[in-house]
Amino acid sequence: MKKVAVILSGCGVFDGSEIYETVITLLALDSHDAQYQCFAPNTPQLHVIDHLKGDIAVGETRNVLVEAARLARGEIKDLADLNEKEFDAIIFPGGFGAAKNLSDFAVNGASMVINLQVKAAARAFALAKKPAGYICIAPTLIAGIYEHGAECTIGNDPDTAAAINTMGAKHINCEVDDVVIDEKNKIVSTPAYMLAERISEAAAGIEKLVGSVLNMTDAK
Amino acid sequence: MKKVAVILSGCGVFDGSEIYETVITLLALDSHDAQYQCFAPNTPQLHVIDHLKGDIAVGETRNVLVEAARLARGEIKDLADLNEKEFDAIIFPGGFGAAKNLSDFAVNGASMVINLQVKAAARAFALAKKPAGYICIAPTLIAGIYEHGAECTIGNDPDTAAAINTMGAKHINCEVDDVVIDEKNKIVSTPAYMLAERISEAAAGIEKLVGSVLNMTDAK
Repeated sequence: MKKVAVILSGCGVFDGSEIYETVITLLALDSHDAQYQCFAPNTPQLHVIDHLKGDIAVGETRNVLVEAARLARGEIKDLADLNEKEFDAIIFPGGFGAAKNLSDFAVNGASMVINLQVKAAARAFALAKKPAGYICIAPTLIAGIYEHGAECTIGNDPDTAAAINTMGAKHINCEVDDVVIDEKNKIVSTPAYMLAERISEAAAGIEKLVGSVLNMTDAK
Repeated sequence: MKKVAVILSGCGVFDGSEIYETVITLLALDSHDAQYQCFAPNTPQLHVIDHLKGDIAVGETRNVLVEAARLARGEIKDLADLNEKEFDAIIFPGGFGAAKNLSDFAVNGASMVINLQVKAAARAFALAKKPAGYICIAPTLIAGIYEHGAECTIGNDPDTAAAINTMGAKHINCEVDDVVIDEKNKIVSTPAYMLAERISEAAAGIEKLVGSVLNMTDAK
């Protein structure tokens, strides 16, 4: 049975993992009879967003791992404990948490720095030539993990695409229900809620991504 | 286009709405081209559970509507503003929040009292003979909303089933991938995470529930 590590960044689109993208990812993995294990860094969130008002909840602090545990029904591990050798692939759902808690892309754009545990985990899969899936805004991490020219998509947002190219990856425009595949680096990415206007649109792309990542685990 | 009100109780299985059940419900509705609108009561949660440790987060307080907004990508309304006339059906996902924040069943069992706004909303759909779906532990609400003998399931947990019967509804055992339908009262229920051992099992029952609820909106 294939085993996939899923890296979360909290719980909620504006300050953590995008919930719909994460659940659709887990459901697609399970529907393919793949096992999954969620991980998150044990670190404070950049901030807490009141998702009703859309504003920062001033004075409130939350921990990425503790909140990500909500999204995983408590079945989660500290990212520090991720051993690439135990898994066939890795997937990063999106949500602003991927650009606020896993890196600081949301603040610093093309000057971003990736959380060291996140970078180590993602690079271990890259160096082992194991496939990886990056969803929504998470492909902004790719330039910091793979060699120059790794191909990915966040949909078609010009500013984000330009930042990805500036950092050294290669952005390719993509429809919401499709994926971009970098065969050489074994990277699959899909726009999801960078473009989706309804949940079934995000699901179409994510289901394709999960299928492609699992297929790549067979390719040697 | 059919419109369905989805009633949330927070964000996270142990103190709010079960996230997987909610997302699967929304995805199934959208896949049927039904519109949905999420609602939640603007009230404090019973408590906050640290989903990593499984313990109460002492001293922490959260609001049901604000946290439910995370689960709905901010697209949520105060339950006080729900007008049954604008919708064809109502669905209650599960999670302990349904028995902690929508009622006090988790504390008081068969002596439970339902939140007044929740009761008013659910009864409006019952009186209008509009279909309703209750998932996981949410069917514990049914005895307080429908006439004596309304049929429902929470799976096969003997204590919860006995409490449902004591309150005046009629519990029927059910497999995780199936639903119990009370045709007279237009109620559909499914066990989901009262029984599910993997997300695709919960999805099978919930997808059947959503299809059944939408079918019933055609029956006059």
